[in-house]
Amino acid sequence: MRILGIDCGSERTGFGVIESDGRSHRLIAADTIVTSPKKPLSERLLAIATGLRAAINLHHPEMAAIEGVFHAVNTQTAIKLAHVRGVAMLMIAEAHLPVGEYSPMEVKTSVVGYGRAEKEQVQLMVQTILRLPAVIKSQDASDALAVAICHATRAGYAERVKATR
Amino acid sequence: MRILGIDCGSERTGFGVIESDGRSHRLIAADTIVTSPKKPLSERLLAIATGLRAAINLHHPEMAAIEGVFHAVNTQTAIKLAHVRGVAMLMIAEAHLPVGEYSPMEVKTSVVGYGRAEKEQVQLMVQTILRLPAVIKSQDASDALAVAICHATRAGYAERVKATR
Repeated sequence: MRILGIDCGSERTGFGVIESDGRSHRLIAADTIVTSPKKPLSERLLAIATGLRAAINLHHPEMAAIEGVFHAVNTQTAIKLAHVRGVAMLMIAEAHLPVGEYSPMEVKTSVVGYGRAEKEQVQLMVQTILRLPAVIKSQDASDALAVAICHATRAGYAERVKATR
Repeated sequence: MRILGIDCGSERTGFGVIESDGRSHRLIAADTIVTSPKKPLSERLLAIATGLRAAINLHHPEMAAIEGVFHAVNTQTAIKLAHVRGVAMLMIAEAHLPVGEYSPMEVKTSVVGYGRAEKEQVQLMVQTILRLPAVIKSQDASDALAVAICHATRAGYAERVKATR
């Protein structure tokens, strides 16, 4: 199955696509949509929508995974993030992709095995899991891949549970 | 000029279109997009996007007006609202409409002349300003028209200031 992971941010939105059978995962694409905070929000949202739509059209994911909005950040940041997340959810819905939502702790636990892992640990584990020659430099793209891997593992797990019944 | 006003809500998103010369305003359209809280957020955002896009394509507004997200509501409500608002802003950007953002107090002051006006007062003033035979029953559609009227008045005021220079 092909999974699109999205890491929303008002200035940097990362996305990553992996191909996975639930046990082993392969990198298909990863990139970051950067938008200038000097531009109006509507223009920035349009850039994010255009970038995600292009990625979906190019790589044909069958499902999507995204982080929830959580309280750790301050309200203003959460509200900005939610605008971007609304647009990302719309792109997912437009493409009729089923979507999994995960907390940052679930993603870290799934990828590193430890819910309070440092960002660098996540980056290294993404490299290891996808057997890449180097870490994905963009933190946001790497985080998006981590969300996709988390979903693949969960979905894969659910599949295996079904298979052994 | 033709103005689209939007009143975002996760369950009910109102919109209204008016034709205005900055002094007198005429109703073109008003409606509410209702989405079920039982449906997944992505589906609800798609319904809102589809509804707003259809309204824009049908009524060809030249500009848009929308309320900001403010702190009065609780954080969870603000975050839900921001998802919808992100989608609304994207529809505005896709149609290349310039957009004005107003606080609820600015809208009430503009329409009723008093920033802490009751919802029913706003509804009555929208009816009066647009010379309608009855109030717009949907509070959300009426609120959307109030935002559009607020923008028309502000834009109209700016125009008049320019004209007398």
